[in-house]
Amino acid sequence: MEPAARKLKPATGQARLPLFLRAAWGQDTPRAPIWVMRQAGRYLPEYREIKSKASFWEMCRTPELAAEITLQPIRRFGLDAAIIFNDIMTPLPPMGVEIEFSPGPVIQKPLRSLKEIEALTVPSQAEIAPFLEAAIKLARHELEPTGTPLIGFGGAPLTLATYLVQGSGSKDFEHFRVFLRTEPKAAHLLLEKLTELSIRYLKAQIEAGAQAVQLFDSWAGLHDQRTYREFALPYNRRVFEALSGLETTSPNGLSEAPRIYLAVGSSHLYPVIQELPCEVFSLDWRMELGQIRSFFPGRTLQGNLDPTVLLASLPVITEEAERVLQGGLGGPHIFNLGHGILRETPPEHLAHLIRVVRAFDRQQANQR
Amino acid sequence: MEPAARKLKPATGQARLPLFLRAAWGQDTPRAPIWVMRQAGRYLPEYREIKSKASFWEMCRTPELAAEITLQPIRRFGLDAAIIFNDIMTPLPPMGVEIEFSPGPVIQKPLRSLKEIEALTVPSQAEIAPFLEAAIKLARHELEPTGTPLIGFGGAPLTLATYLVQGSGSKDFEHFRVFLRTEPKAAHLLLEKLTELSIRYLKAQIEAGAQAVQLFDSWAGLHDQRTYREFALPYNRRVFEALSGLETTSPNGLSEAPRIYLAVGSSHLYPVIQELPCEVFSLDWRMELGQIRSFFPGRTLQGNLDPTVLLASLPVITEEAERVLQGGLGGPHIFNLGHGILRETPPEHLAHLIRVVRAFDRQQANQR
Repeated sequence: MEPAARKLKPATGQARLPLFLRAAWGQDTPRAPIWVMRQAGRYLPEYREIKSKASFWEMCRTPELAAEITLQPIRRFGLDAAIIFNDIMTPLPPMGVEIEFSPGPVIQKPLRSLKEIEALTVPSQAEIAPFLEAAIKLARHELEPTGTPLIGFGGAPLTLATYLVQGSGSKDFEHFRVFLRTEPKAAHLLLEKLTELSIRYLKAQIEAGAQAVQLFDSWAGLHDQRTYREFALPYNRRVFEALSGLETTSPNGLSEAPRIYLAVGSSHLYPVIQELPCEVFSLDWRMELGQIRSFFPGRTLQGNLDPTVLLASLPVITEEAERVLQGGLGGPHIFNLGHGILRETPPEHLAHLIRVVRAFDRQQANQR
Repeated sequence: MEPAARKLKPATGQARLPLFLRAAWGQDTPRAPIWVMRQAGRYLPEYREIKSKASFWEMCRTPELAAEITLQPIRRFGLDAAIIFNDIMTPLPPMGVEIEFSPGPVIQKPLRSLKEIEALTVPSQAEIAPFLEAAIKLARHELEPTGTPLIGFGGAPLTLATYLVQGSGSKDFEHFRVFLRTEPKAAHLLLEKLTELSIRYLKAQIEAGAQAVQLFDSWAGLHDQRTYREFALPYNRRVFEALSGLETTSPNGLSEAPRIYLAVGSSHLYPVIQELPCEVFSLDWRMELGQIRSFFPGRTLQGNLDPTVLLASLPVITEEAERVLQGGLGGPHIFNLGHGILRETPPEHLAHLIRVVRAFDRQQANQR
């Protein structure tokens, strides 16, 4: 089964498609492209400079700021993909939900009843985040000379619902898990609305120019397979199916946006997650890529260096990165961290990591 | 391989050993014994009554209070095992570490350097927790008429180190994970000391009368297999090996204390965890017991109902409990929750669960 490879259709020949997109579409590229989650973030002094003058929401909602932050790591490191600066909470306020950051997201009035969920509106595609579409257009314009592709993203319905019901971050999100048990009807209505919201939100990003999309299901791993199959799988599937066939402008002509799915601490769910119609699975650091490959035949694996490695010495970074690169052989691989880069990371350590990944010749390594 | 079954040696015949101990020693009992984690806890009004008058440390350190709290759920429900009321942080203050609860444990000065770790003392067995030994003796005396066995417990070295270095609860315990990468020598010294501490602490409990011991490795699941193999496996093995051959008084004569290991969110580690020399593996709710059994041949599985189920309706509790009971067939099984009972649980829901577990005839179900 090679759903990804079948879809590869750049207008002017795949050889000229950026490395990241080729790997995302299932090509076993000569070297692994690299980008890192939260690459536009707090570990960069130029990011902290902007953050000292604007609130988090202002940074997300001002197209010039969001585009500038998106470009910072590309200018500094020349990564193989950019990801638009934004937050998975962005589409929720237009539904009528108040959110603050302190520093994690806090929902002012957590949802707990069918009535509160019935009251939520699903805004039109144009209403959700026009500032984000503007930021994507600005960033695309700036990225044009380098040909660096731009990734859009959103939260998966289950993960958005987790925050809306729990109210704030938690170790085990017990309120939410109880809610699924005691109010399944309300839960499904909430997930229906969040699915429609996510489709519109991600479509808007692709139509504005995002060349790939990543769906963050940060809290999927809390659940067992049956719960995931009931409350996550069908909604994630609908989101991904709705994004199939949407075309975006790539530097080399029209192309579909490959779909990336991320779940954390979810190795027990891989046998179910593999049913999702997406091209790329983004994986945390808990299992080696070589052990994971068999769960996702014909798909691209993205990951999965433990972000804590970037705080160790350069020789340790080299050794651990090469272990990940070795594990990624035997199929398409996009190098990334297993989770967001830590704010304490010295930027020169990321520069070193990028050099290690670029120096690793996958064809030669495959022949060994 | 049946390490557990070989060791069964009650003085007066195994038929008269309490059900919990028979299952722990590897017997495929006619019905599954049941106890639940945090059964002596906040969901019980009689516990909250005591808690309104004493601090958490006072409750742990006053033998009469700790024994009374231990007995509360046994009196109310007649569970198949009692677990001494206490906390995994108990042995740390005698090392020279200040800990407060607000409500989770907070280490006043998190450890980060070799020098701070070198300064930690390992108290003698008699110095660690004499109040806990007294509480165990009191509880054993009270439990004698019912024959209910008493479980002692402690934190695994890696999990204790996680708190000592991180300082307080956290989602991903990044400080600690960075510490393992950047200060492996200091980490190993800390784990050495915590291993010796854990051995003395658990030995003291067995010698005072604990008839089984559970090692809580709550944070093992954060790590990949290589990290677990380096920083957890050898230390856990040493703890368990040191407890082998220790005899405790059971209601029916002398018997060794079976050893239970609990790791949460750790299915990716099962292929390594199975190497531990213990009789029982306690499992969270993320995977079905039937899927887990093959990782632990010849051992007893303990678990693994999702604690959120106990907040649902009685028919849902019945259905989900029976699913766990079915999954537990095909080998020895101790029924438990996959994590601690939630404070919002109505006590009558636990009473219902116990009835469901006791009504489930494993021999009849096996024949179906």
